Amino acid sequence: MPDRIITLTTDFGEGSPYVAEMKGVILSSYADAKVVDISHSVAPQNIREGALVLEQTTPHFPPGSIHIAVVDPGVGTDRRVVYACIDQRHYLAPDNGLLGLLIRRRRASSLIALTKQIYWRPDVSNTFHGRDMMAPVAAHLALGVDPQKLGDPLPMLTPLDWPEPEVVNNRIEATICFIDSFGNLISNIEADWLASRRPPGEIEILLRNRRIEGLKKTYGEAAQGELIALMGSSGRLEVAQVGGNAQRLLGARTGEKFIIS
Amino acid sequence: MPDRIITLTTDFGEGSPYVAEMKGVILSSYADAKVVDISHSVAPQNIREGALVLEQTTPHFPPGSIHIAVVDPGVGTDRRVVYACIDQRHYLAPDNGLLGLLIRRRRASSLIALTKQIYWRPDVSNTFHGRDMMAPVAAHLALGVDPQKLGDPLPMLTPLDWPEPEVVNNRIEATICFIDSFGNLISNIEADWLASRRPPGEIEILLRNRRIEGLKKTYGEAAQGELIALMGSSGRLEVAQVGGNAQRLLGARTGEKFIIS
Amino acid sequence: MPDRIITLTTDFGEGSPYVAEMKGVILSSYADAKVVDISHSVAPQNIREGALVLEQTTPHFPPGSIHIAVVDPGVGTDRRVVYACIDQRHYLAPDNGLLGLLIRRRRASSLIALTKQIYWRPDVSNTFHGRDMMAPVAAHLALGVDPQKLGDPLPMLTPLDWPEPEVVNNRIEATICFIDSFGNLISNIEADWLASRRPPGEIEILLRNRRIEGLKKTYGEAAQGELIALMGSSGRLEVAQVGGNAQRLLGARTGEKFIIS
Repeated sequence: MPDRIITLTTDFGEGSPYVAEMKGVILSSYADAKVVDISHSVAPQNIREGALVLEQTTPHFPPGSIHIAVVDPGVGTDRRVVYACIDQRHYLAPDNGLLGLLIRRRRASSLIALTKQIYWRPDVSNTFHGRDMMAPVAAHLALGVDPQKLGDPLPMLTPLDWPEPEVVNNRIEATICFIDSFGNLISNIEADWLASRRPPGEIEILLRNRRIEGLKKTYGEAAQGELIALMGSSGRLEVAQVGGNAQRLLGARTGEKFIIS
Repeated sequence: MPDRIITLTTDFGEGSPYVAEMKGVILSSYADAKVVDISHSVAPQNIREGALVLEQTTPHFPPGSIHIAVVDPGVGTDRRVVYACIDQRHYLAPDNGLLGLLIRRRRASSLIALTKQIYWRPDVSNTFHGRDMMAPVAAHLALGVDPQKLGDPLPMLTPLDWPEPEVVNNRIEATICFIDSFGNLISNIEADWLASRRPPGEIEILLRNRRIEGLKKTYGEAAQGELIALMGSSGRLEVAQVGGNAQRLLGARTGEKFIIS
Repeated sequence: MPDRIITLTTDFGEGSPYVAEMKGVILSSYADAKVVDISHSVAPQNIREGALVLEQTTPHFPPGSIHIAVVDPGVGTDRRVVYACIDQRHYLAPDNGLLGLLIRRRRASSLIALTKQIYWRPDVSNTFHGRDMMAPVAAHLALGVDPQKLGDPLPMLTPLDWPEPEVVNNRIEATICFIDSFGNLISNIEADWLASRRPPGEIEILLRNRRIEGLKKTYGEAAQGELIALMGSSGRLEVAQVGGNAQRLLGARTGEKFIIS
């Protein structure tokens, strides 16, 4: 059997000692774990961005993988920590909407609130449940513990506060949800959703006093410096500057809205 | 036997090619090594911060792990490179205080100055002993070489220049030692040390003209934007802004002092 | 047999979800892969810097390693994606010069343009060939697929646009090619090349109105704050500030030229 994959997605920052503590705890319980970093660059306490990263990346991992997600502004309060099985992958996360985009596509086949302290570290801190609850529980899961034993069944997850696209007078109001390291502005508009409403040739985007017409297929299809729109690799509409950085050019921000007319 | 864990802690920066060179050297000698990044975000040449990261993270890894630490402003001068066994974990580091917080808690059971060139790369550079000495020595250790063979016994390590808390007229002078990616200001005041001197209810912090009263248990216990003090997950007093960033709010810096009155 | 090493070098940024997608795709095809991050901090679309990182790091990995490199401004256009075997290591990269420094030292023993779609993901996107072509091909290689089956032989690679040092009137014009996290300015001047032209004692560098005389052996050999020149750990001339940051001090940039007189 290949070593069990345990991935980590957090807002701790790359190189954070908190991430290393979690890795140490996992490897101390299960030395053969294959720990994989997904991202620690989720903007601090930004649950939406964490949800997007999980939706974009975790389905590419093999079934059976265990995904720990920690974007957890409510740590230590009465918010729950949950186990969810979604599309044959195992998730451990605070119940604050972080799994909200994943469950829009596939129902969770199992939902458990973590309550059985026997699977946690002996002294659980008030401020770091990623290390003290989720990491040891992940190791137990990898070692074969039945998820049902982790706690009590839960009827549903707390929904994610997500900006749905709005259609008013045939104009679509979109939201920038993620900005990648190239400065590409990735929106909440999914390819299928848009295709059913608008032919690609008739798309016109209005963003910070700029007008972008039509959809390109790839970045190299327009002149250097030109602002273009295209369907990105995760199936969402994005705005990019060819050979440049649209974020810097426009001063755009996550959460900002724009118009598709 | 599970693959031997070799961790890396450096001030090279995340994504530094220097880190990758070390990984390559390790894997070329011992292809089954499980190389784990602890952090490469230690502030450049900041030995104190490196010492703190090692103290916070490495005890969470399983006994037998090999920890390489490179924060090494004196590379190529006559400072030693050492092997230390502390609490059943193996450390390789320049002898410049980097292991100084670890040895405050537990005596090193073995201390060796690395002198046996047979365990190094053939041509040792003047500027990169992490790659040319520590990485190959770690691979040899993982393959079972007796640490005693690596060089000559050493009576003691160079101590760390560490800011101890000062108590004057019942006021405690504390120092900010680390700032995490949330902007939380982590101090040199340990929970036990403080508890023996001051009841939690009587703690009042003065930091950059702000007054913070009492200790909270967790971040979610106060209103958004409020400045709070609490015992952080590694057992040190920290100052945080709920849902915000205390570093940015206050303009605070590592090394800065504040008062507990 | 030890698990096959697959390394990743990209300009996606540390913590990019794009990197995690590639890891997921590799592990879904070949769960035992040992995926190692070389760097994701190559400056966006900077092929020269990517070439330098590959040259500096990949030869340290064991023969048989598979190295994926994605700095790919032309993704989705008619630029090729190639397999190259260089010095017993396997490379997958866009054919845009990214392997250009590696092939200056050693001829590629095999060069293949990737054309056999059977080794790719079913739906190849226009914007992310790292995930849809290179990652699955790497997994197939690791599983033992003969590289010849991946596509059609290629006579040569697209050359790298690389700044060679220029010698005019016994003055050498050098270029800053990489700046590390310490702010050290690493040039295109290689140790052997310089040694055959100038004795170390007679080297004088002119950079942004500063004059640096002679070569030091290591950083600790001069006073704190002093600007020095030395041969760095990868065999290239570099300018450093002792205990400081030459980039910040001088405001220097990658691509900038300086004089050795």
